[in-house]
Amino acid sequence: MATNTTISAPAQVISPEELLQHWQGHRQLTRRVIVAFPEDKLFNYSIGGMRPFAGLAEELTGLASGGIKGVATGKWPRINELEHHSDKPLPATKEEILKQWDEVTEEIEALWPQISPERFHDVEKAFGMYEGPIYANFLYLVDNEIHHRGQGYVYLRSLGIEPPPFWDRF
Amino acid sequence: MATNTTISAPAQVISPEELLQHWQGHRQLTRRVIVAFPEDKLFNYSIGGMRPFAGLAEELTGLASGGIKGVATGKWPRINELEHHSDKPLPATKEEILKQWDEVTEEIEALWPQISPERFHDVEKAFGMYEGPIYANFLYLVDNEIHHRGQGYVYLRSLGIEPPPFWDRF
Repeated sequence: MATNTTISAPAQVISPEELLQHWQGHRQLTRRVIVAFPEDKLFNYSIGGMRPFAGLAEELTGLASGGIKGVATGKWPRINELEHHSDKPLPATKEEILKQWDEVTEEIEALWPQISPERFHDVEKAFGMYEGPIYANFLYLVDNEIHHRGQGYVYLRSLGIEPPPFWDRF
Repeated sequence: MATNTTISAPAQVISPEELLQHWQGHRQLTRRVIVAFPEDKLFNYSIGGMRPFAGLAEELTGLASGGIKGVATGKWPRINELEHHSDKPLPATKEEILKQWDEVTEEIEALWPQISPERFHDVEKAFGMYEGPIYANFLYLVDNEIHHRGQGYVYLRSLGIEPPPFWDRF
């Protein structure tokens, strides 16, 4: 028989370690999409007035870097400028984009173990704006990356470039 | 003090109810993207040789319908045909696509409560092909929808149509 305590706690089915793996797997794939762009197209090519993929990558870098700090410490950087979500300098080459990307990967690995399991249901305003439980804002961050990366796939296809396989997250 | 049993069980931080809400929220948004397409563009418009959005929506409908059956019952339909993942007839109009979409929404609501929390770590071959824990295959299914919907956003923008806001999942 379950005790009353067990009954009152809702069952949870995904662990922090699994969420970390989920996130970093997606970030590995997005990194490969950045690599797949020719240098000039990364900064200049767009469809329908949307940002070039360098602009999207820059947003994702800033949100991931600010996001891991907010999730781990509760200190959320504010988004003051929609086009540049980061305290890092604007990268001007593919190499610089990838360097910042890899720095954020290390930040995530370093900060993630500090997050307690209870933390994921704290309700906060992520980036000073988006109120919700941490787990939901975290999923939003990953979803936003998948969404923009999907745009990148269309850019690559329209350039005649085969994108990296969607299922490859390692 | 925690007991040994508590220590040996890894902490889990997302509940089945939260995963259901996450999924259905995304499906609501994708439904609005389908609605946003003009009837002819839904079936005929594409970029870079990719499928028109009707083809993507059809894939998502089939995967969601088969996916909820597999997750809930362990009976996974097999994917024999990449272009049509469903046992449902191919829809020929936007109205039919939306009708199937809404039927799957109801299937999900009906079957989800049958899924036990322990089920999310069962390891199975989803759709007879993709071996992994249920939670990971479930996230993959949602990610695949976000990915293809991101393509739909580019199609809409390139047609001069403002897509529904990404943050609106209700």
